[in-house]
Amino acid sequence: MSYIDLGNDLPGIRSLVTFRPDTGKHLYDLARVILAENNSLSKAERELIAAHVSNLNGCIFCTQSHASAARYAFQEQSSLVDEVLKSGKSTQLSPKMNVLLEIAGIVQQSGKLVSKELIDSAKKLGTKDMEIHDTVLIAAVFCMFNRYVDGLQAYTPMDDADYKYMGERMITLQYQFPIQ
Amino acid sequence: MSYIDLGNDLPGIRSLVTFRPDTGKHLYDLARVILAENNSLSKAERELIAAHVSNLNGCIFCTQSHASAARYAFQEQSSLVDEVLKSGKSTQLSPKMNVLLEIAGIVQQSGKLVSKELIDSAKKLGTKDMEIHDTVLIAAVFCMFNRYVDGLQAYTPMDDADYKYMGERMITLQYQFPIQ
Repeated sequence: MSYIDLGNDLPGIRSLVTFRPDTGKHLYDLARVILAENNSLSKAERELIAAHVSNLNGCIFCTQSHASAARYAFQEQSSLVDEVLKSGKSTQLSPKMNVLLEIAGIVQQSGKLVSKELIDSAKKLGTKDMEIHDTVLIAAVFCMFNRYVDGLQAYTPMDDADYKYMGERMITLQYQFPIQ
Repeated sequence: MSYIDLGNDLPGIRSLVTFRPDTGKHLYDLARVILAENNSLSKAERELIAAHVSNLNGCIFCTQSHASAARYAFQEQSSLVDEVLKSGKSTQLSPKMNVLLEIAGIVQQSGKLVSKELIDSAKKLGTKDMEIHDTVLIAAVFCMFNRYVDGLQAYTPMDDADYKYMGERMITLQYQFPIQ
């Protein structure tokens, strides 16, 4: 049960943005730009970064929901999502994408731990500045969402079936606010 | 020097939101609601939470700028800001505000570490649900901003005088975007 009276029975972040739409609107607007709008990183890759960081933070709601979104978006390659949750990388991903996951994992610990050498290794693989920017921002944003959801103990469904539908919903509805 | 070519010489977060205004707009909109809009927590108290969390994350730019904003807003009580940066609390603050700083400090570590007992101790001091919500959200948001600024190594001025002006500017301009 949530630490405060949210006035609704919605799961995870949805319960919080419904409680406080003045902040919820901007949080969803931000999520939509970084995860759903056109980008040289695919939706699947960006949802994977979100799931990876949430997993490192131990946030069950965000890990399960964004892993589900990533599985839906990766389609026949969906098994790589569980590889990343287990080891932080996958042989099914490009070297560039594996370095971006490594950068995201360092940001999860602390922004101060990101080294020039690691950024240079991404650039040598052809990563654009905007892709490095968006990877760092997505990782940082999920360090926020994870703390927001768990810090208020938002309702976290424990049935895998709830997350399967949620992932498809996130990819198709694209973080519109008010939530539908 | 920043890890990517931001195309401007602005300091800290301002360099990043100028590089990517599509995300910058929502980040500033969020900052404005949680720090500058009317709230039962004063602007000074909210800037103090932001400075405290940034200090725990070791983010010099965000610590110095939000500490400066808090000093400007606390006026003759400004010495309490340095007490909080040193020890996480101040005898010049109410017991309620000291518990909110404690909650923010726990959120900085992990949302999962926030206990019902700690939240109950805030409620017993008359803290409203919205104040608990906003404290957790401000702490979570600065775990994002700190990682974003340091993860891309945004330009961090090292002269105290730069931050003095910046703090006053943050309180009076209220996080309008595009930045002025």
